[in-house]
Amino acid sequence: MFSPIKNTKLYEQVIEQIKDMIAKGILKKGDKLPSERELVDHLQVSRTSIREALRALQIMGLIECRQGEGNFISQSFEHSFFEPLSIMFMLQETNPEEIIEVRKVIEVETAAIAAKKITEEELESLEILIKAFKNSTDENDNVKIDKKFHYEIAQASRNFIILNILNAISSLIDSFIKDARKKILTDEKNREVLAMQHEEIYNALKKGDSKKAAEAMRKHLDFANEYMIK
Amino acid sequence: MFSPIKNTKLYEQVIEQIKDMIAKGILKKGDKLPSERELVDHLQVSRTSIREALRALQIMGLIECRQGEGNFISQSFEHSFFEPLSIMFMLQETNPEEIIEVRKVIEVETAAIAAKKITEEELESLEILIKAFKNSTDENDNVKIDKKFHYEIAQASRNFIILNILNAISSLIDSFIKDARKKILTDEKNREVLAMQHEEIYNALKKGDSKKAAEAMRKHLDFANEYMIK
Repeated sequence: MFSPIKNTKLYEQVIEQIKDMIAKGILKKGDKLPSERELVDHLQVSRTSIREALRALQIMGLIECRQGEGNFISQSFEHSFFEPLSIMFMLQETNPEEIIEVRKVIEVETAAIAAKKITEEELESLEILIKAFKNSTDENDNVKIDKKFHYEIAQASRNFIILNILNAISSLIDSFIKDARKKILTDEKNREVLAMQHEEIYNALKKGDSKKAAEAMRKHLDFANEYMIK
Repeated sequence: MFSPIKNTKLYEQVIEQIKDMIAKGILKKGDKLPSERELVDHLQVSRTSIREALRALQIMGLIECRQGEGNFISQSFEHSFFEPLSIMFMLQETNPEEIIEVRKVIEVETAAIAAKKITEEELESLEILIKAFKNSTDENDNVKIDKKFHYEIAQASRNFIILNILNAISSLIDSFIKDARKKILTDEKNREVLAMQHEEIYNALKKGDSKKAAEAMRKHLDFANEYMIK
């Protein structure tokens, strides 16, 4: 299962061995990792190196530490890219426009992919969100509904890498462009425009029309982005 | 500069404080971090927590440890997303098609953005790469030239988040679809097709035509991807 480790940069090798077990299918999503003590025995490195490796995996969101229970491989990876992305974002002195540009780059094409893969159930769920958005006048609720609408379309693309990148981008938007989503929704007229645009996207997805779905998403994001950057 | 730390999850708080210094501009790209001992003194946490935090940042590629010199904020972040992406990729039992799909999603729209921002110098550099690609019959060289061609277009988009995501995707392709790039280039005819497609992309970029650049990139990737997945 494990081989004892010899070289320098021990924590890297611990990670490599954990990765190797994942690659071989020995460790799967949700599985419990061996205890720190067991890892020390198996890999024959110091407890410090083991802990460094585990902490790094934890910070990246790839493993979870449950108090009194031990370390588990995460079930979902929503946090995995956010930490490095957010630190890099600040270091590069990136302007918020870049985040919004990335969101557009990914979501437009994702809508096109989703149009080919979306299920009846997923369409129904989008329909419910569209109605809820129209009926609610609470900005905070509408922010949540809007996020869910976009999230479900990304999910319908069946591409988990895209989904995870979009999650990270979404967290970046939330933390660096504070209240951006709320700003646009405080205006009654905007809410109507956005509701109409959501419907356009929905109709294109329902028809399985990739080109129209991409166009509708582009229009929608261009409209929303104007408020984000202001 | 630093405030002493009180709570649990100490390593997370160490990272928060380092992030805070980055956000405030106290720490910039390439800067040296305070020594482990100084961090222990300032933050009043154990050396173990400091080391855990530093290791995590190192594994994410956000800081670099230079032997005998200490820890530095990285100058570039080419590695930052690869580690979490690659582990997640294996855990999700993602199929290689998904990586290729993500690459297409991002590169097609990136070409459109690049068409609006590319400089004369960058166009010249692409021209040189196109010529080099035509004149070389060595697959290994051509793999490198091809990668550089795509990398430079991404760079011309002036969006560092996009550039870094594409780097991570490119590393994923290299490690999970081994020899994929080489496979396509062993056939003389493919090389000619690819060379022509590179020229089409270049011409659209030179004209500043976003739509054509995106179309040419889409055609190019669709052609290349057929070989990748086989």
